[in-house]
Amino acid sequence: MLTVYVDMMSQPARALLIFIRLNKLPVKEVVINLARGRNRQDEYLEIYKLGKIPCLKEGDWVLPESATILRYLARTFSDKIAAHWYPEESKARAKVEAAMDWHHSNTRQGCMLLIWNQVIAPANGQPYSESLIKRATFVLEQSLQALERYWLADTTFVAGDDISIADLLICTELVMLRMLDGAQDEVRDMEAWLKPYPKVRTWMFGVHDSTEPYWSEVHAIMHAAARKLKERKFHETSLSKL
Amino acid sequence: MLTVYVDMMSQPARALLIFIRLNKLPVKEVVINLARGRNRQDEYLEIYKLGKIPCLKEGDWVLPESATILRYLARTFSDKIAAHWYPEESKARAKVEAAMDWHHSNTRQGCMLLIWNQVIAPANGQPYSESLIKRATFVLEQSLQALERYWLADTTFVAGDDISIADLLICTELVMLRMLDGAQDEVRDMEAWLKPYPKVRTWMFGVHDSTEPYWSEVHAIMHAAARKLKERKFHETSLSKL
Repeated sequence: MLTVYVDMMSQPARALLIFIRLNKLPVKEVVINLARGRNRQDEYLEIYKLGKIPCLKEGDWVLPESATILRYLARTFSDKIAAHWYPEESKARAKVEAAMDWHHSNTRQGCMLLIWNQVIAPANGQPYSESLIKRATFVLEQSLQALERYWLADTTFVAGDDISIADLLICTELVMLRMLDGAQDEVRDMEAWLKPYPKVRTWMFGVHDSTEPYWSEVHAIMHAAARKLKERKFHETSLSKL
Repeated sequence: MLTVYVDMMSQPARALLIFIRLNKLPVKEVVINLARGRNRQDEYLEIYKLGKIPCLKEGDWVLPESATILRYLARTFSDKIAAHWYPEESKARAKVEAAMDWHHSNTRQGCMLLIWNQVIAPANGQPYSESLIKRATFVLEQSLQALERYWLADTTFVAGDDISIADLLICTELVMLRMLDGAQDEVRDMEAWLKPYPKVRTWMFGVHDSTEPYWSEVHAIMHAAARKLKERKFHETSLSKL
């Protein structure tokens, strides 16, 4: 029996859950509540010592890293899923893998650093830094340009005209920009971030439409968190006028 | 015919070159001089629009991303290379891939940010930042702890008792710490960085020994660059005493 340890507040976990639910893979889901620090408690650390989400367990064997888990599940259940998710042919497969590898130092690094330093840390009284925001902004701008002008230049999805596991990984990360609505200060919001990139916008709707209703299902908690931060922000702004 | 576009000053390119030369793969090497900005000139941008090194070309088909290229070459030449580089069995293969994926946001991010902000940018009069150095230090410390306590806890190499493409990717990155010798200010050097991590040290020697003489061959230019910075530093320190 395969088990994934996940939390809906983790982008890579959401990518994985969409893939599992959409393809009805026989994988059990166990939630490790990140907000309550369950990933840093012994019970989970005994499963995966580094305490990161998600990970996959099969008997005593444990596999971390979302991109690796997506590929492992696609290989394991190749008879259950459509070939476009992770093509068998070596060159087409390599294209999917290249987009996934590119993601780590680009969309992932840009979004994570930005949302942490511009939204989450300030909202929770944790340290953040202007030069990290500056770096995140640079990395994210480079990433969006690369998506628009390279990865999506001639194709509907990042590795071809069909959706693949690379699209799930990259798009669930970019959607984190919704959280910018909850920033304490006036910041460039998701609408403004994506305006110069029409292909990226169209592609994001394409990924959404190809994965419904699972897309909405796994993103509900993030949307609620963004709304909550927004209301708190509004509340604080109103109070500050007194 | 397969061609790789590389430069010896790029860590991932060095990992790739070691793999190609050690296994005598029929791949042509073309140098794109990063120091002269050749990767940002039209000739290379026509091959790979994002201007990063390395990439692989096979006829009209172009593949970026070092980790992906390593896997693609291992698949393509599976009859020419020993199985331990990229095992066929799905769980063993996944372990190699997990270490490679982990690397991007850990060893790669930590080393790159640190060397850039503590050595290269100050030496070239380019902007750098204390909070980026702080973040790099944190990421690198986490990465070394993870290597010592998780990836190398029970095995000689990161994904088992034999060397794999994951070791090449991670170890060529960590060796960049040699560049710290060239920092303008007094900084924690490579010896001090690795002192608390005996397994990491032993493993680095293991990767070195398993890949000679190609390891030394591809690192010669980096060592020369580190020495040059060190001499310049010494020179400047002597002058400052006048």
